[in-house]
Amino acid sequence: MAADPIRLGVAGLGRAFMLMLPTLARDPRLAVLACADPRAEARAHFTEDFPGARAHGTVEALCADPAVEAIYIATPHELHVAHVRAAAAAGKHVLVEKPMALALADCQAMVDAAGEAGIHLIVGHSHSFDAPYLRARDMIRGGEHGAVRMITAVNFTDYLYRPRRPEELDTSQGGGAIFSQAPHQIEVVRLLAGRPARSIRATASVWDRARGTEGAYNALIDFGDGLSATLTYNGHGHFDTDEFQDWTGEMGTPRDAAAYGTARAALRHVTTPEEEAALKERRAYGRGPGAMEARAAPPPPAYNHFGLVLASCEHADLRPTPRGVMVYADDERRFDPLPAPIIPRAEVIDELQAALRDGTPPLHSGEWGMATTEICLALLESARSGREIQLHHQGAA
Amino acid sequence: MAADPIRLGVAGLGRAFMLMLPTLARDPRLAVLACADPRAEARAHFTEDFPGARAHGTVEALCADPAVEAIYIATPHELHVAHVRAAAAAGKHVLVEKPMALALADCQAMVDAAGEAGIHLIVGHSHSFDAPYLRARDMIRGGEHGAVRMITAVNFTDYLYRPRRPEELDTSQGGGAIFSQAPHQIEVVRLLAGRPARSIRATASVWDRARGTEGAYNALIDFGDGLSATLTYNGHGHFDTDEFQDWTGEMGTPRDAAAYGTARAALRHVTTPEEEAALKERRAYGRGPGAMEARAAPPPPAYNHFGLVLASCEHADLRPTPRGVMVYADDERRFDPLPAPIIPRAEVIDELQAALRDGTPPLHSGEWGMATTEICLALLESARSGREIQLHHQGAA
Repeated sequence: MAADPIRLGVAGLGRAFMLMLPTLARDPRLAVLACADPRAEARAHFTEDFPGARAHGTVEALCADPAVEAIYIATPHELHVAHVRAAAAAGKHVLVEKPMALALADCQAMVDAAGEAGIHLIVGHSHSFDAPYLRARDMIRGGEHGAVRMITAVNFTDYLYRPRRPEELDTSQGGGAIFSQAPHQIEVVRLLAGRPARSIRATASVWDRARGTEGAYNALIDFGDGLSATLTYNGHGHFDTDEFQDWTGEMGTPRDAAAYGTARAALRHVTTPEEEAALKERRAYGRGPGAMEARAAPPPPAYNHFGLVLASCEHADLRPTPRGVMVYADDERRFDPLPAPIIPRAEVIDELQAALRDGTPPLHSGEWGMATTEICLALLESARSGREIQLHHQGAA
Repeated sequence: MAADPIRLGVAGLGRAFMLMLPTLARDPRLAVLACADPRAEARAHFTEDFPGARAHGTVEALCADPAVEAIYIATPHELHVAHVRAAAAAGKHVLVEKPMALALADCQAMVDAAGEAGIHLIVGHSHSFDAPYLRARDMIRGGEHGAVRMITAVNFTDYLYRPRRPEELDTSQGGGAIFSQAPHQIEVVRLLAGRPARSIRATASVWDRARGTEGAYNALIDFGDGLSATLTYNGHGHFDTDEFQDWTGEMGTPRDAAAYGTARAALRHVTTPEEEAALKERRAYGRGPGAMEARAAPPPPAYNHFGLVLASCEHADLRPTPRGVMVYADDERRFDPLPAPIIPRAEVIDELQAALRDGTPPLHSGEWGMATTEICLALLESARSGREIQLHHQGAA
């Protein structure tokens, strides 16, 4: 452990926490000291995973825990605003999961609460933390390849057929591809664009009534001054863009190219929403591998990614891959490799530590998350109205 | 030769003709009997290539040639309307190259002239003739995979750095990616959509002032009722989507995966527009290989294509490739192979013959071409105004 580790508490031991667990369990810059969750089973597992940690039944109790300086809020979306307010009021720094909220007013309330309390508010993990996108962003900023003019983001996955709780299939409750998946793609695109989006025209609809929520969308974002992006997402479990990433999956691990349709096949045995929720529950924290397994696992073979991304500059196309950035320049095509990752999603802790220990304002701030939420809401509004939506909360990206 | 071949005349022995020459030279359903071109050198070569054919100095003389029943009009864009009118007035059927015209009034004039004369008017070649797209269209129409909901078309090429005459780099004269390249992608998307487009929102701008015209665009086309398409084109010679087609090029022939930046490198030795035009001229008809070489060539290894195309239906993604259609269905992923092509672009002659010999109304009719021209013009207008453009001439696609 580092000399002055970040004293972290975790609010909510659900799916988002499970995805961050390998990071929390392994990063020596963190001291995971406490949690809050209503499930006793999960709390018991947590205190085994993090010996000496305190387990609270409520987020309020966690916020009052003097051992903790920062809280990772991974509770259900609709509770984010209350929990961020509680943490800020207690003077704790906050890392809050995406989607930050489902309404701009809630985002603003979080930004205001953080500002008033003088704490750092970071929104994530999203895939815009992934090192290859950050590297491509740095290349664009460097200016060597001229201005960025077009960003192409295409992701085909089996998102819609992974086991879900009923609310995850209800757009009004923050379910579906627009709240769950689009934030990743929007943030990757915003990161590479490096300036405020001006408008969005999008389409999205429910294809599979049995799932009840949008599993796909198309969007064109205009950043003005000759820069635009197309965002295509299809989570219906057919074609998979991991084929274009040498069969490296979203989490940076190898996939079996011969396997097909496994998500849909697994769901086929499920006949009720309760059975499906139970199937998901089997993967919940406390039921399977935990921090000890995460600590024993080998380093991840590659970085996280979110599908095919191409940033077209005037003098080069940059293509982030799970291992670096392919540079297709005027005179040469070359691969710019990144050092192999040691800890998955360590980039989130990089940003958290830079903020808390060095006072570096985070890129993925509350304002950043609010801008993404505005685009998600505008995407839905454009899809419903068939009209282009102007954006007003994009700050100076 | 077939029992009753189509008695064809060719108007214009330029680049479009060169690209159709392998078809014209090899398809036994054609009797190529005459041509018209102002260049004596090209006419002389033509009469060697097609023994017994008559070579005229003007399109008017070709139209008066009683031996000819149909004319392939491959003259410069701005002459299409006059030449289609002349051919129709002479009672000749017409195959006219894309772009059909640069103004809707000109398209309408061609449609009207064909209607009044009672001749068939076909617009092409465009890549929407390519057999794999036609096969995917048939699969969609068959309904087995449910309704088509999203079409994704992405093409990255070196288009802008191929040798050009000055007018090919002037958008107002029909140069640039929107008039030269977008018609292919728009027609592939329209073919797969199978119904009229309603609106388009697009972006396009000049990235390389030395080339002076748009080399890239982004577009979102809304077909209404839950179907939309994203069209992304970048012709700046960096990333190349042929990488996603097993390095099969646009014309269905293998490419060298190790070669990079060859178009831009070849242009680097050119310092004036005159030198560049001369470079292009070296590839003109009469200077190099002709029909004899085309006849001696082996059958093409694969079909033409226009980049990555995915048609997402409710129960399958269909991915046309240069050799067939990949079907990513609910339960299985399978490849639907097409028989290897025998004659390149024979699909154009299929449609011509069906119209002239069987009276089958062509898919790629004047109205079809007019609808594509409207979308090209709307793409430019949307890019310039920053607004979505409603479409009014899309017929019943």
